[in-house]
Amino acid sequence: MDICARDLRDHVLKMASLVEASLSGSLNLDKTMEDIFDLEKKINEFHMLIDDACFKYIALKSPTAKDLRTAIAVMKINADLERMGDQSVKIKRHQITIGREILQLKNMALEVNLMVKNALDSFVRSNTFLATDVIHHDQEINAMNRDIVRDYINKIKNNEIGFDEGYSIIKISKNLERIGDHAKNIAEDVIFLESGSDIRHNPEYKTGKKE
Amino acid sequence: MDICARDLRDHVLKMASLVEASLSGSLNLDKTMEDIFDLEKKINEFHMLIDDACFKYIALKSPTAKDLRTAIAVMKINADLERMGDQSVKIKRHQITIGREILQLKNMALEVNLMVKNALDSFVRSNTFLATDVIHHDQEINAMNRDIVRDYINKIKNNEIGFDEGYSIIKISKNLERIGDHAKNIAEDVIFLESGSDIRHNPEYKTGKKE
Repeated sequence: MDICARDLRDHVLKMASLVEASLSGSLNLDKTMEDIFDLEKKINEFHMLIDDACFKYIALKSPTAKDLRTAIAVMKINADLERMGDQSVKIKRHQITIGREILQLKNMALEVNLMVKNALDSFVRSNTFLATDVIHHDQEINAMNRDIVRDYINKIKNNEIGFDEGYSIIKISKNLERIGDHAKNIAEDVIFLESGSDIRHNPEYKTGKKE
Repeated sequence: MDICARDLRDHVLKMASLVEASLSGSLNLDKTMEDIFDLEKKINEFHMLIDDACFKYIALKSPTAKDLRTAIAVMKINADLERMGDQSVKIKRHQITIGREILQLKNMALEVNLMVKNALDSFVRSNTFLATDVIHHDQEINAMNRDIVRDYINKIKNNEIGFDEGYSIIKISKNLERIGDHAKNIAEDVIFLESGSDIRHNPEYKTGKKE
């Protein structure tokens, strides 16, 4: 087997396209639970295939510097993508309970899907500025989640919505917020990959604001 | 720097002792939010230190076979331990809302802490039987979570408990269930480390029952 760092990057892109399909399908009323399960199965297969390819690449090529950072970043991005697939399954379950479109969730999902797209673009284009932007964007997603959770807790308390529907809306909001966290993790991995700097747990990056 | 695979293992044990302190403190009424934040800060420092040590070890020593699997497993275990620390913070916040001991949560936490301890023991003792046991134990934790969530949703609906308290109990149960998932991930990493087999997404392991 002759594998190179570029092959690892290509694997991530194939995995990402499955995950993006799963995310956009999770709130789409035309997609069924079965559709999302089918995607999850493929995502899980890719998850193992990519980890195996990274292991073999490191074992056989003994990469250093940026090539080693690529292999390690790909393993981490792979883990985050797989978890996004799990979140999609959870979202679909709750969306079926709700059975109709909720505007606040739709808007939040658009923002989250953009964040995921940008995180992956920052990886493809080795763009640390875009990656930094994704990290800041996470603050907005967290605020959207807080608003939705607060609104729907109040609606449940005031009997303006049934418990089961309100609870499912809150859960979807939380799942979307988690997907945003995974996108942020990917952006942090891109910065490590490109610069060698580990900026996780760095409050300066986390509290940054977009201009 | 002369680092060996044993040093990586020692790092994990130090990180694990911080995480175990954080987990046991999260539901302990005598521990404050500040106590858990202090532990989280140390856990985050270790998180970066361990990833850096693994990277340097792979770059400088070009390990193969079990030594490489150790470095990769340590990176993954490190990530799961860090997330357990995050879950502890979330649990503490909800425990403060509740302000009293809830027997079902206490019992579930005992089971989860045992699962975490066994996952780490399986790593220390290179014991794949114990690791397999941890993976099966996760089914029981999931069942405990389902029971608590169902019970407290009913209590909220029937006005037997205030919404905020009931909601916090449900959230703690979910956080404990997530910690169980992370312990299961560690057990899967131990099996990969010791055998070279990737058993993730393998239904045979997941549905196994303890004798």
